[in-house]
Amino acid sequence: MDEEAPRSMRRVAPTASMFLKRNPPVGARPGALAIPRGAAKPRIHVVAYDADHLHEQDVDDVGRIKELLKSHTVTWVDVQGLGDETVLRQLADVFALHPLALADVVNVPQRPKTESYEGQQLFICGMLRLDENGDLHTEQVSIFIGKGYLLTFQEEYGDLFNPVRARLRDNVGMLRESGADYLAYSLIDTIVDGYYPLLEVFADELEALEERVMRRPHPALLTRVHDVKRILLLVRRAVWPLRDALATLIRDPVPMVTDSARIYLRDTYDHCVQVSEMAESYRELVSELTNTYMSVISNRTNDVMRVLTVVTTIFIPLTFIVGVYGMNFHHMPELTWRYGYFVVLGLMAALGIGLMVFFKLRGWLGDPGREVEVDDEK
Amino acid sequence: MDEEAPRSMRRVAPTASMFLKRNPPVGARPGALAIPRGAAKPRIHVVAYDADHLHEQDVDDVGRIKELLKSHTVTWVDVQGLGDETVLRQLADVFALHPLALADVVNVPQRPKTESYEGQQLFICGMLRLDENGDLHTEQVSIFIGKGYLLTFQEEYGDLFNPVRARLRDNVGMLRESGADYLAYSLIDTIVDGYYPLLEVFADELEALEERVMRRPHPALLTRVHDVKRILLLVRRAVWPLRDALATLIRDPVPMVTDSARIYLRDTYDHCVQVSEMAESYRELVSELTNTYMSVISNRTNDVMRVLTVVTTIFIPLTFIVGVYGMNFHHMPELTWRYGYFVVLGLMAALGIGLMVFFKLRGWLGDPGREVEVDDEK
Amino acid sequence: MDEEAPRSMRRVAPTASMFLKRNPPVGARPGALAIPRGAAKPRIHVVAYDADHLHEQDVDDVGRIKELLKSHTVTWVDVQGLGDETVLRQLADVFALHPLALADVVNVPQRPKTESYEGQQLFICGMLRLDENGDLHTEQVSIFIGKGYLLTFQEEYGDLFNPVRARLRDNVGMLRESGADYLAYSLIDTIVDGYYPLLEVFADELEALEERVMRRPHPALLTRVHDVKRILLLVRRAVWPLRDALATLIRDPVPMVTDSARIYLRDTYDHCVQVSEMAESYRELVSELTNTYMSVISNRTNDVMRVLTVVTTIFIPLTFIVGVYGMNFHHMPELTWRYGYFVVLGLMAALGIGLMVFFKLRGWLGDPGREVEVDDEK
Amino acid sequence: MDEEAPRSMRRVAPTASMFLKRNPPVGARPGALAIPRGAAKPRIHVVAYDADHLHEQDVDDVGRIKELLKSHTVTWVDVQGLGDETVLRQLADVFALHPLALADVVNVPQRPKTESYEGQQLFICGMLRLDENGDLHTEQVSIFIGKGYLLTFQEEYGDLFNPVRARLRDNVGMLRESGADYLAYSLIDTIVDGYYPLLEVFADELEALEERVMRRPHPALLTRVHDVKRILLLVRRAVWPLRDALATLIRDPVPMVTDSARIYLRDTYDHCVQVSEMAESYRELVSELTNTYMSVISNRTNDVMRVLTVVTTIFIPLTFIVGVYGMNFHHMPELTWRYGYFVVLGLMAALGIGLMVFFKLRGWLGDPGREVEVDDEK
Amino acid sequence: MDEEAPRSMRRVAPTASMFLKRNPPVGARPGALAIPRGAAKPRIHVVAYDADHLHEQDVDDVGRIKELLKSHTVTWVDVQGLGDETVLRQLADVFALHPLALADVVNVPQRPKTESYEGQQLFICGMLRLDENGDLHTEQVSIFIGKGYLLTFQEEYGDLFNPVRARLRDNVGMLRESGADYLAYSLIDTIVDGYYPLLEVFADELEALEERVMRRPHPALLTRVHDVKRILLLVRRAVWPLRDALATLIRDPVPMVTDSARIYLRDTYDHCVQVSEMAESYRELVSELTNTYMSVISNRTNDVMRVLTVVTTIFIPLTFIVGVYGMNFHHMPELTWRYGYFVVLGLMAALGIGLMVFFKLRGWLGDPGREVEVDDEK
Repeated sequence: MDEEAPRSMRRVAPTASMFLKRNPPVGARPGALAIPRGAAKPRIHVVAYDADHLHEQDVDDVGRIKELLKSHTVTWVDVQGLGDETVLRQLADVFALHPLALADVVNVPQRPKTESYEGQQLFICGMLRLDENGDLHTEQVSIFIGKGYLLTFQEEYGDLFNPVRARLRDNVGMLRESGADYLAYSLIDTIVDGYYPLLEVFADELEALEERVMRRPHPALLTRVHDVKRILLLVRRAVWPLRDALATLIRDPVPMVTDSARIYLRDTYDHCVQVSEMAESYRELVSELTNTYMSVISNRTNDVMRVLTVVTTIFIPLTFIVGVYGMNFHHMPELTWRYGYFVVLGLMAALGIGLMVFFKLRGWLGDPGREVEVDDEK
Repeated sequence: MDEEAPRSMRRVAPTASMFLKRNPPVGARPGALAIPRGAAKPRIHVVAYDADHLHEQDVDDVGRIKELLKSHTVTWVDVQGLGDETVLRQLADVFALHPLALADVVNVPQRPKTESYEGQQLFICGMLRLDENGDLHTEQVSIFIGKGYLLTFQEEYGDLFNPVRARLRDNVGMLRESGADYLAYSLIDTIVDGYYPLLEVFADELEALEERVMRRPHPALLTRVHDVKRILLLVRRAVWPLRDALATLIRDPVPMVTDSARIYLRDTYDHCVQVSEMAESYRELVSELTNTYMSVISNRTNDVMRVLTVVTTIFIPLTFIVGVYGMNFHHMPELTWRYGYFVVLGLMAALGIGLMVFFKLRGWLGDPGREVEVDDEK
Repeated sequence: MDEEAPRSMRRVAPTASMFLKRNPPVGARPGALAIPRGAAKPRIHVVAYDADHLHEQDVDDVGRIKELLKSHTVTWVDVQGLGDETVLRQLADVFALHPLALADVVNVPQRPKTESYEGQQLFICGMLRLDENGDLHTEQVSIFIGKGYLLTFQEEYGDLFNPVRARLRDNVGMLRESGADYLAYSLIDTIVDGYYPLLEVFADELEALEERVMRRPHPALLTRVHDVKRILLLVRRAVWPLRDALATLIRDPVPMVTDSARIYLRDTYDHCVQVSEMAESYRELVSELTNTYMSVISNRTNDVMRVLTVVTTIFIPLTFIVGVYGMNFHHMPELTWRYGYFVVLGLMAALGIGLMVFFKLRGWLGDPGREVEVDDEK
Repeated sequence: MDEEAPRSMRRVAPTASMFLKRNPPVGARPGALAIPRGAAKPRIHVVAYDADHLHEQDVDDVGRIKELLKSHTVTWVDVQGLGDETVLRQLADVFALHPLALADVVNVPQRPKTESYEGQQLFICGMLRLDENGDLHTEQVSIFIGKGYLLTFQEEYGDLFNPVRARLRDNVGMLRESGADYLAYSLIDTIVDGYYPLLEVFADELEALEERVMRRPHPALLTRVHDVKRILLLVRRAVWPLRDALATLIRDPVPMVTDSARIYLRDTYDHCVQVSEMAESYRELVSELTNTYMSVISNRTNDVMRVLTVVTTIFIPLTFIVGVYGMNFHHMPELTWRYGYFVVLGLMAALGIGLMVFFKLRGWLGDPGREVEVDDEK
Repeated sequence: MDEEAPRSMRRVAPTASMFLKRNPPVGARPGALAIPRGAAKPRIHVVAYDADHLHEQDVDDVGRIKELLKSHTVTWVDVQGLGDETVLRQLADVFALHPLALADVVNVPQRPKTESYEGQQLFICGMLRLDENGDLHTEQVSIFIGKGYLLTFQEEYGDLFNPVRARLRDNVGMLRESGADYLAYSLIDTIVDGYYPLLEVFADELEALEERVMRRPHPALLTRVHDVKRILLLVRRAVWPLRDALATLIRDPVPMVTDSARIYLRDTYDHCVQVSEMAESYRELVSELTNTYMSVISNRTNDVMRVLTVVTTIFIPLTFIVGVYGMNFHHMPELTWRYGYFVVLGLMAALGIGLMVFFKLRGWLGDPGREVEVDDEK
């Protein structure tokens, strides 16, 4: 069966625990951080730019960031990996992050949201993607939009934002001329657009599953269907609150976001709505698939039953008849007839054929085991 | 089975991928266009008119449009086909389109929506139709309403707006006396009214399917039912946001739309609501059909089981009895009786008839294989 | 089975196409009328009255209406049948109807709604009723409330409003003292109250169906259940927007409706809400009925299976034993024993009885074919 | 099976017609009363009180009420039974009831609601209770709150409000010191609290049903489950609009209700919300029960099938083998072998045991007929 | 089967009656307390503190509390156990609690809510937890926030708030510097965070159940699934109104809550929303599990049927053939043939093998009894 599994989504098997959140122990003081063992050490990458200059640098010493902040119009500090509380607290000092804000960054996954703090706008969203092995990854991206700087946090090392960095370096589009809010928009837009390829994988997967369910229903397919359903649940949980967060950015008087960026964010909002509607549509297709599964199984059971009934109903009376003439009574006149054997054989043939004709007329002999036709032309 | 398939919707088989959107690569800069290979080259058709004059022309050189814009009260520029980025960018220059607006036109399908730009109102909606082969087509229509002009984009060549053009030429109704907003209304109304014939096809299809499910349930019907369900999903996804977009045009202070046009748009809005309610009703009918399918299958399985059980229960004891008298024991007194054979035959007949009567009284002999009656009079 | 069908709703079989709307061809100009062939010719009946006088007349010449409008405080022009475009256009002239308003009257069914026009309030609602044969009829009633007149349109000839006419003639209640708005209320109230007897028929139908499903499930019942479900869909589609339309009349500053009439309309609104809630309740009962159907079928299949299994499990081993002693081996010691036959018979009886007892203890011998008990006392 | 039925809810079998409303004939004039034949004659009980005095009296002559109204701070006129239009109209005169208000009192059941009239606040709510036989009763209670008086109507004679009367007589709590609005609160609170014991009966019933469904599924249980579902529908229909009515009393500027009474009504509102949420929870439990029923049936069918299959699969090949050696061919070498019989017996034993082992390994021999375990420890 | 049950949730079996509320008898006066027999006697623990001092004490005499209230900035009075009406009434006197507020504390469970009283804000919420035996406990916590004091009530003795007490004693974080509202936030936050470990247990439970349902469906698993569903219902009923109550605290002008505490409560609100969304996700997973159960059962039934049909269809014709040659007709030519026996054996072998091949081609011989594969690689 190996050759039938669709290539694209081979090992995606989200479990119920993917819906959980890392949390400090109950009763811990507000702002406590729950950094899991083995979390990636933070790597800090800074891109400082204005319309004419661009400075790019990996930073080890958090203190160095302060200087960079002053040197250019916009400074983008990108932190990948959350595995060192000391570094995180230093960053919090440099950027004057609220303790709860830092906790929101670290204790993942938060619900996507946006919060206003003094001089800062925090925007938190989730990202879902399939890696080259088809494994599903969820990651939280936290973005602080400040005056002249953008501070972003990712859970793991990744190259998600490389296209934006390339556009910055090559001075493509309006990025270099615009402020931190437009950079924030570019990043959020990149994240939201990342859902489209994921949904495309679903489309392929669903089509493949549907065909296989019609052809050969098997519980392993059901497992697969449930996996898809669960990922769609994850997509929904990621995208719905993201809509609200984006709407807040667009509609509310958030001081860090300029009106020109709002127009662009409105476009991202539209994409976000579209993604959530596509996910809803796929959820309906998946539910339908479960029903189809049940219907196909019921139909097959019915086919099998018909075969059993036809065979049994034809041969059981015949077997009874031969049994009759296998009895050892001393006085059974038919046994001594010259052509008794052939008469009985003939009668049985007639009975058998009669029953066959009867079932044929009832339509029970259709073709009980044939493959289900998916082609409407037939 | 060929003769049973309803003519009207023979090859409609929307797949999960119909729900997808063409999108530029993730991380591309805002406003990037994703023109698919093989897209139709743009054909530009211009109708410029006022109450007294009408000028109609195919335009190859985009620059020529500028002159036409000045010559009449209303100039309608209709672009069919999106397959040439250069031409599209030229048009964007002529009409001063926002980069995001142009991207919305090209990167289809967008969610139906309306957006206000400086001096322009963009209205985007989707169109679903069956061609003469019964194939389903989805197409996006984008309408820019400006001062004295209307700019429309369609994905493919088509004659959808011919009735409106005819009314313009023949000076029927108020079209020639009214502005670009009334022309926009006429086009939107034409699109919305186009959903009625589509739903009519569903009505026929559903009635045919229902009758066939009751008469002879088969998984191929289920495939068909799911096709219908999916198209209804597409209709819903097209119509629901269209309602909102229309409501915005009617309710919000959109400068490009005059109050007299609003009254007409309210009528279109009513139609749109009605279409979406009809689609919802059909969705319920379709769900019901799936349930019916399952019920009919269950019922048939029950009928088949009853036949099997009746036949088996009658003949298995009889076969046992004849087996008894087929045993080769040396001392079996009955075998030597003069009428033993006939006595046993008689007993078996009595037993068989007795069981038949028993089942008759239980109502198990109804008419297990008969066709399901759909006529209540029986 | 004829005697089992409930009398009241014998031939109600709404099809998917009942949900459709008559519509002019796509692209027709706004206000185009789609009058079906064979539509009833308009009959115009006028009742003009004030507190002291009442004048009642059938009118052939539309021009005559103008005079009547001036002679009394309130003039009620009731038009039955929409089969003559000329007459309708004349009426539109007399009452200065907006082209879209006339189209709403003719292109039925519209969604129930209310629209304000210059000097007029249009109120459109739907009516569902069973005729004496139990056939379902849907009809649209359109009411124009104007200063001193009421203009009503019905699709077919009917005596729906006769009780109101009788109350006018007999000067019962406040009708003659009140204005056109109170007359409008009386008509709307009559329409809404007309849903109660319809729902009463459902109540009887549902009770009958439920009993029959428990006693003898059959796909024909399912067809019936689906008919009921569809009518309830129609009721919902008629009543829900009617609520909104009534709420608009009550709440919005509609100049044609006085405050005293609003109090009465509030009562009608309450009835309308009650009808829609009853319809929702019945929809839930109907869904439940479908589930019950499936459960009863499953239960019956289980019963049948148990019978089959018990009979087979008892006789198959016995048949094997008698087969053993039917073998023709030359050396089978048991065959020559004096009481071998009787010993084997005894053993088989013991085995058979043992299995019976076993099944009895398992509870499989209940009474597999008995009628389902609906009486809880048992 | 009699002993298994839970005592508490023995004969509750609400039918679809319980959802209906008594209504005057269609087209009757507004305010017409639909008093059913056999309705109880009105009994009027008056309690007039102030902080220091309490006067209690049965009143036959409606005229006498006028005097009582003047004598004390608060006069509570309680009318039980609606079977005499004359008396009702006299009461309407005394208290200046609006014709529609009186119709709301009589044409039951109304949707729970509150309406403001000149100098009066009408509050209508429904009551559901089980009598000592476990029969379900629905009754409408209508309360008019006026200046210094409270007028209540009940459909039947009942002692529902006796606890409140006792508190009045014994001067417990704040009743005697407070106004008519506080008395109204006490009555409404009594009605709402009356839903708790009803829901308690459901809790017991549901637990009993669940256990029985797991142990021995039977369609009669399903009937019972549907009864519970229908009562919950009735509870929902009674409680949801009651919430709205209470919210209106609390929130809107209703002149008859003082702020101090509002605080108490808020408490009743909380109870009302809680009752509706409990009813919703029970509805979910009931739906689940239907699913469980189907699952248990399916499981049982599967068990029965397994038994059938195991027995058949073991004995059918054996029966074939003994059939082979029962053939009467003249030349069958095995038949003459010295130990042929025993060899064949041995082979068959081996085959039978082999198949048993095979099925055992497949887990098909579990214990197909055993009672379902509800204890998790096993 | 004992070894398969997941350790964590061994005995959680919430019954329908867990959804009930303790309530005084119907008609009791407002504010009546329903203290169940055997309720724990109240234990009063007081922590009084300001930034520099902390005084902690168990209090037996309620009168003593008054003095403590004056001595420090914040006094936290924690009452565990509600089993003594006298003590509760004394506390009500000391803190001037409204009678309805006290009733809300005692007549549990209330719906989570917040109410404003003169100088006090009451906050009521529910707590769900598993004890060390895996038993589910529900408890109501009531919090009165006043000027300089916090009064909390718990139903049972418990150490839920010990982490907060420890933080107070150790002067960790801002607790000692902040007011009663921040203390209230800390307690509410502790309660909300307590839902995370509960949901974690569900995640494990659901994963275990899913695997077992796929491997070996059994009604006992269904019971377990329903238990989970019911607990999720309880979680929902606890968390949804809690969201509203928190939103009220954050958004409304509640005088007892300062703006700085509001920021922290917003964080708790986010957690609360996240918990409710997780619970909803799990509810969907559970519903899915029920469907999976049905599908797996159906599939198994289909597998069993196929085995039965294959075995029966192969051996029944063969048995018929051997029956034919077991007949005792005197003239059966084949019997005397030299190789008749072997010819017939050969024919039967051919027939049997032919049928096997036929079924193989139909795919019916897959591996009907094999374990369901959950590994996609196969």
